Amino acid sequence: MEKAPRLTPLAAALPSTVPFVGPETQERASGRVFTARLGANESVFGPSPRAIEAMARAAAEAWMYGDPESHDLKQALAAHHGVDPAHVVVGEGIDGLLGYLVRLLVAPGDAVVTSDGAYPTFNFHVAGFGGVLHKVPYRDDAEDPEALVAKAAETGAKLVYLANPDNPTGSVHPAARIEAMVAALPEGTLLVLDEAYIDTAPPGTAPAIDPEDPRVIRFRTFSKAHGLAGARVGYALCARPLAQDFNKVRNHFGMSRISQAGALAAVRDQAWLAHVVAQVAAAREELGRIAARHGMTALPSGTNFVTMDAGRDGTFARALVGALAEAGIFVRMPFVAPQDRCIRVSAGRPEDMAAFEAALPGALATAAARVAGG
Amino acid sequence: MEKAPRLTPLAAALPSTVPFVGPETQERASGRVFTARLGANESVFGPSPRAIEAMARAAAEAWMYGDPESHDLKQALAAHHGVDPAHVVVGEGIDGLLGYLVRLLVAPGDAVVTSDGAYPTFNFHVAGFGGVLHKVPYRDDAEDPEALVAKAAETGAKLVYLANPDNPTGSVHPAARIEAMVAALPEGTLLVLDEAYIDTAPPGTAPAIDPEDPRVIRFRTFSKAHGLAGARVGYALCARPLAQDFNKVRNHFGMSRISQAGALAAVRDQAWLAHVVAQVAAAREELGRIAARHGMTALPSGTNFVTMDAGRDGTFARALVGALAEAGIFVRMPFVAPQDRCIRVSAGRPEDMAAFEAALPGALATAAARVAGG
Repeated sequence: MEKAPRLTPLAAALPSTVPFVGPETQERASGRVFTARLGANESVFGPSPRAIEAMARAAAEAWMYGDPESHDLKQALAAHHGVDPAHVVVGEGIDGLLGYLVRLLVAPGDAVVTSDGAYPTFNFHVAGFGGVLHKVPYRDDAEDPEALVAKAAETGAKLVYLANPDNPTGSVHPAARIEAMVAALPEGTLLVLDEAYIDTAPPGTAPAIDPEDPRVIRFRTFSKAHGLAGARVGYALCARPLAQDFNKVRNHFGMSRISQAGALAAVRDQAWLAHVVAQVAAAREELGRIAARHGMTALPSGTNFVTMDAGRDGTFARALVGALAEAGIFVRMPFVAPQDRCIRVSAGRPEDMAAFEAALPGALATAAARVAGG
Repeated sequence: MEKAPRLTPLAAALPSTVPFVGPETQERASGRVFTARLGANESVFGPSPRAIEAMARAAAEAWMYGDPESHDLKQALAAHHGVDPAHVVVGEGIDGLLGYLVRLLVAPGDAVVTSDGAYPTFNFHVAGFGGVLHKVPYRDDAEDPEALVAKAAETGAKLVYLANPDNPTGSVHPAARIEAMVAALPEGTLLVLDEAYIDTAPPGTAPAIDPEDPRVIRFRTFSKAHGLAGARVGYALCARPLAQDFNKVRNHFGMSRISQAGALAAVRDQAWLAHVVAQVAAAREELGRIAARHGMTALPSGTNFVTMDAGRDGTFARALVGALAEAGIFVRMPFVAPQDRCIRVSAGRPEDMAAFEAALPGALATAAARVAGG
């Protein structure tokens, strides 16, 4: 056979990593569909009925490419945030936009700072462009803004990543602490502020940031509270020059026309968003009660999930996640110690929460037996 | 104000290019909606009604991420092509997949070969990763496989791009000529065979290529004959190791769940595809007659568009495209001489073809007057 294609040295060195295994992959392996899908922080409450209707209507027009400028959606988002549309970048989910951002800024060897145990897909992109990741430990189950800034200064990082609220712990920093972090950033370090979970956070979580401030780019998504994970729409808010830079590398015709229509309807239906946020708050409380009833401790959460301290170590929590999966409940867990003593459970409808609780005692017993037996 | 983010030297040097201006951008500028949308080789005939139905159904489930493995779609495509699913890579349109491929293979300074006037988005990706493009002229309004291979050998190119059928001319090479091209490829050059328009090509156009052959990657799409441009689904067929390599860089959760459902329904509805292909063939004939009636010459086409020689130069053709736009007809044209003597008109329904013909005499007169006046 002929010689294989010649990958770049960087690509040749990359592992064929998958940042997350999807629930469908697990379902195919087990031959059973999950009863409750609570592992990916999707919104079981669904998207706005208006968004569903808009997408169904747009399906018939799917023969047309989506508007490469996502003009109407960008206008609506700009109005919603009270900024000029030139500050808005629409893309294929935060994952897609993070990839473009890293590509714009990170060349092989460039330093990037994040927390050890924070969003793996960001790390996937940094590694994919040859960046060098410097990780700071969590402090008290939350990201540590001061330590992140110090590490950025120490390493000359081009990017420092922080999610607020945080995934996978659910912790929240108040706006003032993020504003102080921005003020303390070393010159030439861009704060990647992932606000995927901002819609379910307490009032006062989103910092006031001048849209012209070149030190911060914030990311928002329709995948969480808006219930449109499967539509792949995220956006960034940042200074105009950086927003314009995305045009250098983005997939200009990459947005689904149907998804554009769904996101536009979703942003216009703030009543549905408020409804979902209320449901999420109720589910978080219920998850706290369930945790307590079964000897676990719920961490405080400003997200659409609750991270529960299972009281032992990562080996036990992994066994618990596995036992829950066998019982038809899809949940995930933090990857890194000491947060890997926890499991992470998405907010769901009362029936989802009940299914989780019904499976929990058996799963806890199974996990305990396996850990003891191992 | 603080210092701007530090782009990589490569990113800093890139222009904020937009490969194509979308028709919506033109409509916003003019304040009028196009009567006939015949410029982007979309399928005015629409997607399969079953695909529309599947997407409308999937819209309600858009709260779930799409399966990151696109398992069901990949299985269906593999069965359709009689290959193992390990040879199939599903992605966000051919544009998205071309970006991943270029990223895997092209480092700054690496040579890539294409035709002068071929698909600009491929060039956008190559430039975006710092590759050096070597261009070969068209010969007789068609890409020149032998010259492309010779240039690849001369430059040590990692990639050589060829679309068959070709965009923007519509020309077709028979399978044997592509097979000969593969056989003549220099060692270490990968043929990027863009078969976006294969569904409307004459039988015998698609070459027989061993799916294990590491010298070729072929691209297919749901954006053309399948009528799903707005859904963003394309796929590649290639040797297993290269297919696996895409996992190193792709946006694993980048596929819209709705689009996956639409594409799956489309690949299962070959009757609709056959119906569209027949409509396209009829429209091509009609476009040939229209061209002849108005003093132009239609180039032979195996695509869902007809490229028409307007009989003069690029200045005239550009004026004609502009005059047609003013008359509500969206068409495009080749960018590079001598093909830029032509305009490119997508196949459409009888009413679209009629609208085009109705606008043509006035537009030809306007263009002639403007060129004379200029």
